[in-house]
Amino acid sequence: MKVLVIGANGQIGQQLVDLLQESNVHTVRAMVRKKEQAISLQEKGVEAVVADLEGPVDDIADAARGCDAIVFTAGSGGKTGADKTLLVDLDGAVKTIEAAQKAGVNRYIMVSALQAHRRENWNEKIRHYYVAKHYADKALEGSGLTYTIVRPGGLTNERGTGKIAAAENLERATITREDVAKTVFASLDEENTFNRSFDLIQGEDDIHEALKKI
Amino acid sequence: MKVLVIGANGQIGQQLVDLLQESNVHTVRAMVRKKEQAISLQEKGVEAVVADLEGPVDDIADAARGCDAIVFTAGSGGKTGADKTLLVDLDGAVKTIEAAQKAGVNRYIMVSALQAHRRENWNEKIRHYYVAKHYADKALEGSGLTYTIVRPGGLTNERGTGKIAAAENLERATITREDVAKTVFASLDEENTFNRSFDLIQGEDDIHEALKKI
Repeated sequence: MKVLVIGANGQIGQQLVDLLQESNVHTVRAMVRKKEQAISLQEKGVEAVVADLEGPVDDIADAARGCDAIVFTAGSGGKTGADKTLLVDLDGAVKTIEAAQKAGVNRYIMVSALQAHRRENWNEKIRHYYVAKHYADKALEGSGLTYTIVRPGGLTNERGTGKIAAAENLERATITREDVAKTVFASLDEENTFNRSFDLIQGEDDIHEALKKI
Repeated sequence: MKVLVIGANGQIGQQLVDLLQESNVHTVRAMVRKKEQAISLQEKGVEAVVADLEGPVDDIADAARGCDAIVFTAGSGGKTGADKTLLVDLDGAVKTIEAAQKAGVNRYIMVSALQAHRRENWNEKIRHYYVAKHYADKALEGSGLTYTIVRPGGLTNERGTGKIAAAENLERATITREDVAKTVFASLDEENTFNRSFDLIQGEDDIHEALKKI
């Protein structure tokens, strides 16, 4: 599969691009917002395209054309205001879903947030962010694409353990960004994740085993 | 019809409550956020309930129970941040849709914004607000309720003329809040507005005529 990574300059995105670049099974196209980010990826031998989640759907569709899967792991980040949460995390995400439809990319993996599907469990401190993630996830579920929604817990930068727990509902806990990237990578062609959504935290199962059990 | 007006303390909401209160056909229940707002309405003889759009769906469903229709004309307003736009204008609105489903209220009128359905025509200055309105409208369209989405242009406080233009797509223009309230009122039992969405600006047709023509 050729995989378009949206948010390729992000902390999970970078690790996913590396995994795909090293893979014998998949290839990668990195989508970034700034030209200098694309150049720096290209210097490392990574195919990269520039497109803005605040721009037209057609630009994103052009960036996606020829790919077999899209992974959305972009985010407006904690430094910008809630207006950007609406424009990027919600509307930007939905634009990439529409772009997938337009470009004929049928497989779509969304990196969401733990319990984004259940309003009563949203993290109070970033409740507005959860609103954006929730409605982007809903749009994906209704899109007709073969989706997987991965909802990781609190993200850490430690080295991955390769051991996770993945299920419809899990208590809040942490997970390394490395293990999130590896779980997304493993989900790409794991049919048991097709049209499924799951919470993801550090656990006791190997990633492939865990994905077979959800 | 007994009509629950959500956002009854707002500028359109107040006028709509008055129209319903004076009506021989419909009756009104006003939903407001603060107890003192409810008391002041009750002193004028208006049935009023307190419920918070940032609170649980069940509270809103309790407020809606026994009504035949809901009008959503609440808004976080221009004074609060974009986080409230997410929590009130988007998630709050969707909660009221879920509450309508729970309480068995089948008729639902949403006051939205001109061209909220077309991303390319969103007002640049309040683009994030349009994102919230767009996805709330989409949730209503997919809800199974008998909906009408009224998308007024720029709101003014002048006296209404009773003359409007209502159509799928209209150029940006203004409309008085009084005429918006009257259009919502007239839409309640106008079957030609059922499961329809329309832009609304000041125009040349009487309200009832205009609604027959959309």
